[in-house]
Amino acid sequence: MKEKFVSYIRDLQAKITSALEETDGTAAFKEDIWERPEGGGGRTRIMENGTVFEKAGVNISEVHGELPKSMQEYFGVKDADFFACGLSLVIHPKNPFVPTVHANWRYFELYNKQGEIVDQWFGGGQDLTPYYLFEEDARHFHRVCKAACDAHNPEFYGWYKKRCDEYFYNDHREEARGIGGLFFDYLKPTAEMSVEQWYDFVTEVGNSFLESYLPIVETRKDISFGEAERNWQEIRRGRYVEFNLVHDKGTLFGLKTNGRIESILMSLPPHVQWRYDHRPEPGSREEELVKVLRNPKNWI
Amino acid sequence: MKEKFVSYIRDLQAKITSALEETDGTAAFKEDIWERPEGGGGRTRIMENGTVFEKAGVNISEVHGELPKSMQEYFGVKDADFFACGLSLVIHPKNPFVPTVHANWRYFELYNKQGEIVDQWFGGGQDLTPYYLFEEDARHFHRVCKAACDAHNPEFYGWYKKRCDEYFYNDHREEARGIGGLFFDYLKPTAEMSVEQWYDFVTEVGNSFLESYLPIVETRKDISFGEAERNWQEIRRGRYVEFNLVHDKGTLFGLKTNGRIESILMSLPPHVQWRYDHRPEPGSREEELVKVLRNPKNWI
Repeated sequence: MKEKFVSYIRDLQAKITSALEETDGTAAFKEDIWERPEGGGGRTRIMENGTVFEKAGVNISEVHGELPKSMQEYFGVKDADFFACGLSLVIHPKNPFVPTVHANWRYFELYNKQGEIVDQWFGGGQDLTPYYLFEEDARHFHRVCKAACDAHNPEFYGWYKKRCDEYFYNDHREEARGIGGLFFDYLKPTAEMSVEQWYDFVTEVGNSFLESYLPIVETRKDISFGEAERNWQEIRRGRYVEFNLVHDKGTLFGLKTNGRIESILMSLPPHVQWRYDHRPEPGSREEELVKVLRNPKNWI
Repeated sequence: MKEKFVSYIRDLQAKITSALEETDGTAAFKEDIWERPEGGGGRTRIMENGTVFEKAGVNISEVHGELPKSMQEYFGVKDADFFACGLSLVIHPKNPFVPTVHANWRYFELYNKQGEIVDQWFGGGQDLTPYYLFEEDARHFHRVCKAACDAHNPEFYGWYKKRCDEYFYNDHREEARGIGGLFFDYLKPTAEMSVEQWYDFVTEVGNSFLESYLPIVETRKDISFGEAERNWQEIRRGRYVEFNLVHDKGTLFGLKTNGRIESILMSLPPHVQWRYDHRPEPGSREEELVKVLRNPKNWI
């Protein structure tokens, strides 16, 4: 399974970066190949200052070795070896009417000292963070997520949509990071779902990504905007930074386990603002967004 | 002691905000009085978009009541009441040649259920974060810190300078936030130092603040700068955000104990950038700064 999923995320990275370059029209991804001293490495691809995408990172990594101390505590095991691989992406468009998107699909194996697999699971999801709300965009994104889920289990969309709303939540602001999507973790083989069936599910979600996002980009990328919309986008990006640095387990985990800092923090937006006690005008489109973030809703 | 220190920080807030307004020349502080539902409150003063200061917050607070659960765990006590007060300030100047500064001086009391003081201590310090290094500015700042310490104990400066270098450190970047200053905590009455003597020490440090910082502002505020220096300042401000949101105990504590979010996050800079794998040019002034942040030095 690990070779199969590694091969999948390599192909998916190529597919997604090509499609984003085509949509952008001018900028190209820059590639960094890196190695992890303790085993494994990754291929980071970053685009900056494109016509459509101000900053986009689409990274894969494949790491293995002794389970680090901090992960031993986290998983409640010790003296184990591990293998982890995944694709992570964050796309920050320039136009405030185009939403930011994040996705991650990953696979994990734990081994005993005889090298036998003692545990294995998939995790991941994708979520959308608009600066201005277009309900039809939110519905489109969720519809694509739901279709990918429904092919495997009619309950999945409901479960993983709810977990996404719960996870991508800025407690200290009492608002969601965005309008959600899917979030799942510890998808382990059971009587109902074999590891191959979970692979089919996770890759179907991964394959649906471009369809969930690119049509929204195409529809919104040429809407004209001014300084006011740009300021609002940069202020909201501040909330994105707050979530990633204060709450996001993946980011904190990477920072505290000596991960590759630049690949982890590629998720942070290019230009960001913090203003004291900023509040949108009553009745404005900006306020409309905040109201929805305070009360996550069902889009389908 | 608590009335005495509260009265001190009130006066100090007035003194500091007046001096900053005078130096800025055009902008005025805006004041927000707030109350804590469980007891106490604060007076937040913020200046934004000044001529010299792009964003400055000088806040006092005075809170009391039952010790919140998270603080019980932190201090290893339970069923206690507490009182805490302090002044916190962060100043982000517009000109990249003027350093950012942070300071905080605070006093804490813990009570048993009979209302008797069972513990009391002072904490605080001040530290400087330049974007371009002027060694004479770093020396000036540290000389003023040292003079305030030396009047009370010739060992203090060495101890608290070292703790400052250790505390304001971005582990994940392997570099200091800035060029340090003083950091002290749990200054409790002992045979050598009564609580009144600690008060004298902490207030001497607080009183030295304007002298440690304003002369630097006056010397650097009119140096001309362009987009390159401004970009560097905004990228370095990103490191400031990373420290405050990932490592700073005060910020995380506030966010996780339902503190007043806008007063806590006033510390975040107004305009910030994150670029992928940004590195200063070899031999540049930008690189000179980073080298010093990687190897904290003695300035006196």
